[in-house]
Amino acid sequence: MGYPTYFEAVDARALLADYPVGEAFLARYIGMSRDELRARQERDFLALMKRGWEIPFYRRLWSAKGIEPGDIRGLADLPKLPSYDKADLMAAIAEHPPLGDFHGLGGEGRPPVILHTTSGTTGKPQVLMFGPKGREVGNLLVARMARWIGVGAGDVVHSVYGHGMINGGHYIREAYTHFTNALFLSAGTGVETRSATQVQLMREFGVTVIVGFVDYIRKLAGVAREAGLEPGRDIPVRLIIGHLGTEDRAATEAAWGGARAYDWYGVGDTGAIAGEGPDRDGLYVWEDAQYLEICDIDTGASVPKGEQGDMVVTSLYKDDIAPVIRFNTHDVSAFRTDRNATGLVFDRIAGFLGRSDNMVKLRGINLFPHAIGAILENRPELTGEYVCRLTRDAAGTDRMTVVIEHREPAGDAIAPLARLLRERLGVEVEVVLAAPGETAALTQIDVRQKPLRLIDERGR
Amino acid sequence: MGYPTYFEAVDARALLADYPVGEAFLARYIGMSRDELRARQERDFLALMKRGWEIPFYRRLWSAKGIEPGDIRGLADLPKLPSYDKADLMAAIAEHPPLGDFHGLGGEGRPPVILHTTSGTTGKPQVLMFGPKGREVGNLLVARMARWIGVGAGDVVHSVYGHGMINGGHYIREAYTHFTNALFLSAGTGVETRSATQVQLMREFGVTVIVGFVDYIRKLAGVAREAGLEPGRDIPVRLIIGHLGTEDRAATEAAWGGARAYDWYGVGDTGAIAGEGPDRDGLYVWEDAQYLEICDIDTGASVPKGEQGDMVVTSLYKDDIAPVIRFNTHDVSAFRTDRNATGLVFDRIAGFLGRSDNMVKLRGINLFPHAIGAILENRPELTGEYVCRLTRDAAGTDRMTVVIEHREPAGDAIAPLARLLRERLGVEVEVVLAAPGETAALTQIDVRQKPLRLIDERGR
Repeated sequence: MGYPTYFEAVDARALLADYPVGEAFLARYIGMSRDELRARQERDFLALMKRGWEIPFYRRLWSAKGIEPGDIRGLADLPKLPSYDKADLMAAIAEHPPLGDFHGLGGEGRPPVILHTTSGTTGKPQVLMFGPKGREVGNLLVARMARWIGVGAGDVVHSVYGHGMINGGHYIREAYTHFTNALFLSAGTGVETRSATQVQLMREFGVTVIVGFVDYIRKLAGVAREAGLEPGRDIPVRLIIGHLGTEDRAATEAAWGGARAYDWYGVGDTGAIAGEGPDRDGLYVWEDAQYLEICDIDTGASVPKGEQGDMVVTSLYKDDIAPVIRFNTHDVSAFRTDRNATGLVFDRIAGFLGRSDNMVKLRGINLFPHAIGAILENRPELTGEYVCRLTRDAAGTDRMTVVIEHREPAGDAIAPLARLLRERLGVEVEVVLAAPGETAALTQIDVRQKPLRLIDERGR
Repeated sequence: MGYPTYFEAVDARALLADYPVGEAFLARYIGMSRDELRARQERDFLALMKRGWEIPFYRRLWSAKGIEPGDIRGLADLPKLPSYDKADLMAAIAEHPPLGDFHGLGGEGRPPVILHTTSGTTGKPQVLMFGPKGREVGNLLVARMARWIGVGAGDVVHSVYGHGMINGGHYIREAYTHFTNALFLSAGTGVETRSATQVQLMREFGVTVIVGFVDYIRKLAGVAREAGLEPGRDIPVRLIIGHLGTEDRAATEAAWGGARAYDWYGVGDTGAIAGEGPDRDGLYVWEDAQYLEICDIDTGASVPKGEQGDMVVTSLYKDDIAPVIRFNTHDVSAFRTDRNATGLVFDRIAGFLGRSDNMVKLRGINLFPHAIGAILENRPELTGEYVCRLTRDAAGTDRMTVVIEHREPAGDAIAPLARLLRERLGVEVEVVLAAPGETAALTQIDVRQKPLRLIDERGR
């Protein structure tokens, strides 16, 4: 039986007309009115909802709340729909193994699909599926940002995102090779290409852009130095595109000889959601493709603009194989309320502030272990590496110990660090010093793309 | 400056009309006359030569032999051009780092290119570059074979080709996801996804097809058994598509519970060159895309059909970024001289018989260490694993010791094996027995995609 190939299933010209990149992207969205953007979103939302009702997962989810197709007439009705999260998807996989029922895969004549898994940062890897359209628009959103901040044919881009079953490396490779004309090196993790080899490769090819998780990108700078190479000079990196979150932009830039670091955010299910522009003043939400709500962590209700909450995403463009309609990422951010300098119509967010399901409540104070990185940054006596251990004493009181790597771990360094953390976090934590490299066994920084920052020992 | 994206640079419909897959492939080439095929090859060859003269590497190579553009008027003139090999490409990279000068990369307005390296099986990894057309036709040739032997929407394909900088995994992933609608699992090597995890993944997804290097594919069957899974039953594999070469088709099939194994051949520079059809009686050369010569290992002259020699390949379709014109793979094969059963117009080869630069001359006899695998196959007392050590004594005489893994390595098993090898190889070799797993340190089967079978200790 015949079926369209990947290239026949996606009409590249139509897709680029709908989701422009490069100059066409700026020409379309600088100065557009919010009304015009909203009209486009409403159009795509109706097509998405039509598809959503064809997907067993959503039919179950929505019908259980008594919702009928006629109830959702536009984006204003979106909050009536329940959100769902990774746990719901994993439950769907358990009930309908191995793929779950959150897709409309169709029969024999269907076009090709792309199947991957998440990296399993927050638990068991989850299946991800993409139709040709969903895949390529997702790719294009990554490339859109890269081109906006100046990645071009003269650049050599080095990617440290992992491959294998994991979506990340494949996704980013497709983004750059399909929609930019930079040379792209798919080095992958230190397990795929040893760090010492990566550094030699970067020198040999004159890498100008690094993309990936900044913990490992910073580590590579150290590996380069050990090999006698001066980051930024012997490897002429000028841009770093990563997930800075609340972590250290300045330390990453310093490690790479003053390269400029840019932040972006996205998850496997949704593709790229937001990224910085040349102004590096908040992350622009790609609102022609993504509809982002920020919702109260406890109640799920929309929070006023500027306040923190869970990012709940509806991917307006994913109307093919695996629609995403109100996916709660449990990643916390907040909308920016000030005007941007570029004139782009899209709203901005503050970026990734922490995971709400990793949020620790310590004597009434909400605390993101991930955010401690920003407090410990830019101190020459520290390596920037740390890990938090959460314990519960016999009386049921939670206590947090922050293990901090110190280049000369002496006892008199503890008190000032404990004072600093108390001031910035608003709650008392214990500080323990470790020698450089000593937290690696707990954070697993050498083997995980996103190191662990919280070890919850309360149940032990 | 603007440039076409990957999808705009390649016209999918035109490409599929020129290089059909699926039913259209059979409709085009079953019953076609050799004359009609030749006319097409001549047309594409002229376009390729025009492009070749624009590439500095070829201009140098050809001009050094006094060849001028007018000298090559058709495929009959092809043997006038010198062949080249990996050493020439590596020299070009050394002279023009990091990319060499064997491409026509062009300037700012060029479309995207795909850049990877070889796996470095036969030395330092080599840069590979592809334009969108060259890339996708190469992908399509892989998918063409898969679809011919019956891979379809009901299949789940598990790939153990490596990713990172290496071309293999990315190439095969693109082939299956762009041109078949099977579900595709890009597990990669045992370093990317641990073997025990791969086996669980295969069970969970009900893998029906495995693609990759058969040494590792056989190893996975053992890992499945260790996990209490019956290969072929608990993991319903029905097809294995790999590089069988002179190695054990029967043992691979037996390991996977009677799945059918299919052989194919290709190298990074050229893409897929030949593969088996449903008849499994020789490898069909994809002659609409590849022009294959088989040449005397010493003189480089064409050998009569049926005789063994180096495969020298001209990729008729690669007229974009990195043309391949008379690339000597140093892989040995021979054309088949009998008629095929399918009616396809393409010539067939016997498959990969060994590497001419790994060929050992032992007392006047040419011997491929790689080919010993076929002699040791199908013996329950052996694991099929072995390695050859080549030494030179004080008198300058070369000797070969074959270290063979034996399940019960007792002294009386040596003499019959030595006799068997002498009969089949035509020359005396020493046999040493090893316990199961003991050759792994020398063959590096756990870390290399293609295990080493020859350790040359003559220089030590």
